[in-house]
Amino acid sequence: MSSEPLLMIPGPTNLPEPVREALSQPSIYHRGSQFAQLLEVCSKGLKPLFGTESDVLILTSSSTGAMEAGIVNFLSPGDRVIAINSGKFGERLGEIASAFGAEVSWLTVEPGRAATPDMLDALAGDLSPVAVLLAQNETSTGVCQDVAALTQVAASHGALVLVDAVSSLGGIPFEMDSWAVDVVMSGSQKALMLPPGLAFVAVSERAWQAAEHAQMPRYYFDLRAAHNSAEKGQTPYTPNVNMIVALAEVVALIQAEGLPNVYRRHHQMGEATRAAMQALGLALFADPEYASDVVTAVQSPEGLDSAQLVDQVRDEHNILISGGQSELKGKIFRIGHLGYAGLSDIRRTVKAVAASLARLGYQCSMDAALQAIEEVIAND
Amino acid sequence: MSSEPLLMIPGPTNLPEPVREALSQPSIYHRGSQFAQLLEVCSKGLKPLFGTESDVLILTSSSTGAMEAGIVNFLSPGDRVIAINSGKFGERLGEIASAFGAEVSWLTVEPGRAATPDMLDALAGDLSPVAVLLAQNETSTGVCQDVAALTQVAASHGALVLVDAVSSLGGIPFEMDSWAVDVVMSGSQKALMLPPGLAFVAVSERAWQAAEHAQMPRYYFDLRAAHNSAEKGQTPYTPNVNMIVALAEVVALIQAEGLPNVYRRHHQMGEATRAAMQALGLALFADPEYASDVVTAVQSPEGLDSAQLVDQVRDEHNILISGGQSELKGKIFRIGHLGYAGLSDIRRTVKAVAASLARLGYQCSMDAALQAIEEVIAND
Repeated sequence: MSSEPLLMIPGPTNLPEPVREALSQPSIYHRGSQFAQLLEVCSKGLKPLFGTESDVLILTSSSTGAMEAGIVNFLSPGDRVIAINSGKFGERLGEIASAFGAEVSWLTVEPGRAATPDMLDALAGDLSPVAVLLAQNETSTGVCQDVAALTQVAASHGALVLVDAVSSLGGIPFEMDSWAVDVVMSGSQKALMLPPGLAFVAVSERAWQAAEHAQMPRYYFDLRAAHNSAEKGQTPYTPNVNMIVALAEVVALIQAEGLPNVYRRHHQMGEATRAAMQALGLALFADPEYASDVVTAVQSPEGLDSAQLVDQVRDEHNILISGGQSELKGKIFRIGHLGYAGLSDIRRTVKAVAASLARLGYQCSMDAALQAIEEVIAND
Repeated sequence: MSSEPLLMIPGPTNLPEPVREALSQPSIYHRGSQFAQLLEVCSKGLKPLFGTESDVLILTSSSTGAMEAGIVNFLSPGDRVIAINSGKFGERLGEIASAFGAEVSWLTVEPGRAATPDMLDALAGDLSPVAVLLAQNETSTGVCQDVAALTQVAASHGALVLVDAVSSLGGIPFEMDSWAVDVVMSGSQKALMLPPGLAFVAVSERAWQAAEHAQMPRYYFDLRAAHNSAEKGQTPYTPNVNMIVALAEVVALIQAEGLPNVYRRHHQMGEATRAAMQALGLALFADPEYASDVVTAVQSPEGLDSAQLVDQVRDEHNILISGGQSELKGKIFRIGHLGYAGLSDIRRTVKAVAASLARLGYQCSMDAALQAIEEVIAND
């Protein structure tokens, strides 16, 4: 192992060796047959992760670019939309829609809670929205929402459903087709084990129809241009070719492990992390019914600023975990367990957290936490 | 040498070893002090290339994203603008402005020619435009426009000047401050010796003032957000951290060579390529007064489809050169000479082109072409 820190933050995540190797290759020509083949491998290889037979388009941008593309291609200024504010990322979806002229009504849930179908049903009944925007997984609070149930409600009101699956895709099951989600947005630096810099949007047939009439202005993120180019094995603008080469490696890694095994590994990491934190006497931040399998948010012990814990874990153990954001700053810490990570990383992180808590004056049992992990494994 | 092809296309370009090494490092945390230091090194290190003391902002996208950012932050729907269509990239600037609601008037020049100050003066006098949009270097035709002179004319009509320097930055001098250009856009995969995926926008004080009133909608490409984050050593959205690490290597490489030497090397490659092609009996496509030092467009011999030549050079010599685009398809070929390249690459490419032309039935003298290169060097 190098002296590089172990990344247990909710992105960027650790990179497998074949990905690092691929990134360092000479750039390939983006209008040649080699690139066309790779683009097809990537686009097809991502479909099972989205749970779709629809088009998966690959963009060169941060994940927020996918979020913008997933909105501006399907809506018009003045459209009434509901944005589920379940945390920082649900909020961002609404902000983007608003920046491009949509009339946004917020369904705001308490931090750590998820929106329920009943809440959405009531608001949608009043508003008849053109679209509902939501994030599957909120890394800011460790909450994973029930996209299937929320989509069913939204669709019953005739709304398009546009879902941010940035931090969940490839770690938590997504079934775009069977849930009848219209647009799904994601990115490279979470469970997909790549650096940041590629973004993905899956578009249903119904969403393509909506795109015909959508009036929000767009150019770089125009998905019809991306779609037309993809049919020729290209992208409209010079893509990050090195990242595409690396993405093809990721597709192969996921196929080799088997997607059900990938999901199982993430679920086990989630269960183990939650059990260990509780065994340390700490309270989980997220509603247990909606606990995320890619990130766990934990309440800091009374009197302890979580930033101190984050610093201690970094400086003494060379492991990065995250503090809270905005109003949760100092109050929670967050452990990412997604992508290129496994139970050994969870054990190492739990030991570091327990030792750091003890160092900061909080009494807890590291043994009990490690024992809790083994029980999760035994009961799996 | 590996079996990877030599890239003599106008981007992506060849990657120096330290860049490849940097790309393969583990991802770093984008909200930490290490990232903040790197971002500052990069942002400051790019300023001499733009010839500016103004802010240089770094975005995660293709260069077209920088073009969009450089327009939507400074204009409003309904604004009258002049777009200089000097080829594919000048055209794209106008298309973006139009997609976001500007009223675009075109100053279209014949392919291979540059816009002259007189042409712009006449049109701007009629239209009183809010802004003039132009590309410094047109990779589609091998033309480099006189940004200083065109900016002076535009400014005399009170227009903002927004310039695409995507393919020229770091290869051809740009003097944003002394020319009084308002906004300059660029990208990573040309003279900057990186893969595609980072984009750069330099913004003058006058442009920031215009941004206060600009009404085109924007979110991902909102440069005020980028500016606010940059002051904290961050980006608004998770950036391609591996590319930023590699960009810091590029900054060091350029500083080590010395920017005047970098420009001199590009000028010499341009002169050598042009002389060699003429010695082969071929006609240059671009007006000699505006010949580009980063890409040379050459007319295909009568009766020879340039695509055949491109294929031959690739298949027999493992060198990539480019054909013509759109209406120039089959009629011209293009040799990129920018970034991590030198005279030895020019010699190798000229030999391959000469041999391939001979193979395709066009009589020419390889020796004369190589001799022409040596004369350029001797007279430098």
